[in-house]
Amino acid sequence: MLEKPYLLFLGDAPDPLAAKVAQGIRDWNPEAALGQFRMEGCKADMGLPDMTIEEAVAAGCKTLVVGVANRGGIISSPWIEVLKKALAAGMDIASGLHNLLRDEEELVMAAAQHGRKLHDVRIPEVKYPIASGVRRKGKRLLAVGTDCSVGKMYTALALSAEMQARGMKATFRATGQTGILITGNGVPLDAVIADFMAGSVEWLTPDNDDDHWDLIEGQGSLFHASYSGVTLALIHGGQPDALVLCHEPTRPHMRGLPDYQLPSLEQLQDAALMMARVVNPDVKVVGICVNTKAMSEEEALDYLAAVEKQMGLPTVDPVRTGVGRIVDALA
Amino acid sequence: MLEKPYLLFLGDAPDPLAAKVAQGIRDWNPEAALGQFRMEGCKADMGLPDMTIEEAVAAGCKTLVVGVANRGGIISSPWIEVLKKALAAGMDIASGLHNLLRDEEELVMAAAQHGRKLHDVRIPEVKYPIASGVRRKGKRLLAVGTDCSVGKMYTALALSAEMQARGMKATFRATGQTGILITGNGVPLDAVIADFMAGSVEWLTPDNDDDHWDLIEGQGSLFHASYSGVTLALIHGGQPDALVLCHEPTRPHMRGLPDYQLPSLEQLQDAALMMARVVNPDVKVVGICVNTKAMSEEEALDYLAAVEKQMGLPTVDPVRTGVGRIVDALA
Repeated sequence: MLEKPYLLFLGDAPDPLAAKVAQGIRDWNPEAALGQFRMEGCKADMGLPDMTIEEAVAAGCKTLVVGVANRGGIISSPWIEVLKKALAAGMDIASGLHNLLRDEEELVMAAAQHGRKLHDVRIPEVKYPIASGVRRKGKRLLAVGTDCSVGKMYTALALSAEMQARGMKATFRATGQTGILITGNGVPLDAVIADFMAGSVEWLTPDNDDDHWDLIEGQGSLFHASYSGVTLALIHGGQPDALVLCHEPTRPHMRGLPDYQLPSLEQLQDAALMMARVVNPDVKVVGICVNTKAMSEEEALDYLAAVEKQMGLPTVDPVRTGVGRIVDALA
Repeated sequence: MLEKPYLLFLGDAPDPLAAKVAQGIRDWNPEAALGQFRMEGCKADMGLPDMTIEEAVAAGCKTLVVGVANRGGIISSPWIEVLKKALAAGMDIASGLHNLLRDEEELVMAAAQHGRKLHDVRIPEVKYPIASGVRRKGKRLLAVGTDCSVGKMYTALALSAEMQARGMKATFRATGQTGILITGNGVPLDAVIADFMAGSVEWLTPDNDDDHWDLIEGQGSLFHASYSGVTLALIHGGQPDALVLCHEPTRPHMRGLPDYQLPSLEQLQDAALMMARVVNPDVKVVGICVNTKAMSEEEALDYLAAVEKQMGLPTVDPVRTGVGRIVDALA
């Protein structure tokens, strides 16, 4: 979908956090980007060579990826000037911003003039089928969470990296814009029309070698009143053989829903298995990934040990301990 | 959304079944339509006065509703001529066809020229919010099915009619195109963008009187691999106080999925309650509606009695026995 290699556009990022998409690409797909483009006042640095547009094209960059959040919800004129220059020099542009590239007339005109593409990865570019429910070859693992934003993407990326490092056949399958920019393809599931959600996940995770694993990025939660339908479509379209439960233990309530408590890991396990067995009777929960960032090292390790004892499953923090023990369980 | 009263357009319906949308309007909202428009060769008859376009407008019709399925997936030239005449005479047009009115240039031009509206009720006309999960006043009942097309719309319409006949406050809430044409408003849920599904259902079933019931049309099934996400969004957006289980006992496999068996009513009950309790801990299953059309009278009554004993819940066929016993249980 996106042509590589990338030039990472960091713009005038006010701080490193504003460039978290670029950081994700840097962390998880380091060969994808050859350089970075920074404007005056940029406070982010990916440790890549700074390149002008001309240098990037000369180095072989095919796509400029907007790796930074824009301020105030507009794509500023100084940005537009850089992006137009990139189009004129022969690069496509990819962005996951809410403000769409395609809504900027100057960019649309420049892309048309120079025969380049504007990729708004929040918007589906594919006409997805209705799900068929037919069993596919190969293995699939899906990360499911007690809540939104508890580390499901990170979990799937970490599992994919660990499996590849061990020489296993493994592919991360992106279902959100950051994941799509990291890998260069995927399905922006939250923007798919209801009837085609599960079908888009089938499309994303097709037949494969018997010993190949798709590591599917989760979205939402079966227990999140706003987004649960997306999660169930992912379970039924993904036909997972393995589930990993993801959790953030310090959160006071469901994200964005002050009246809702998080479910227990047992509740998540029961609901996810019940629903996943509809499409794959052999599905198993193979481990638990906890985001313990808000805890001290001692608290975190105690918590992981307690959950492991309580649930009887390998329990890790992908950042603090790595996911090796879950891959051991899979292999 | 749609202005009433309607003129029902039956076109050149090859048989009565082709006019099932018109029949639905006739059965469930008989005051909505003042007349019917039939073309040469039309084999359907709603028992309404046949009217020309001029007569319909003179009688006060505001919207011509396409109550018939088109042949071969095209809106034919003879149809276009009638529809243009209706627009010129001052009526809007509403349709649930896959082929959209808005894709017919002649209709778009005629509507613009005469200041009339083209309503493609398959396509959302509203920018729905993200669901907030906040509890709302009033009562809500949702029909959930072991499969698609097992009578969920019919169940909700029958409950609404029975409750209104008893002087209860009740509103049918449409979530599919036929239901929308019957009532004149609703949400075409299967065409809503994933992130906004649950929010669209909250929008459809707002705060109401404490003793008012929304009867929400179900879609899909938690156990249907293609559409389950839509169903879960409906459960979480609808916050049902009451669930009715819907079933068709003679079906050999899930609709469109030859490899999938239907779940048992117990499995449906367990899954639907587990998911509905996330948004409403007090939710109850209040009854079961079975479509026994494919059975003899004796078989059907035996089956209903057996299910009632097995499940311990009022079990009816809305067509054969009516839904009075379920309304008794609610009241």
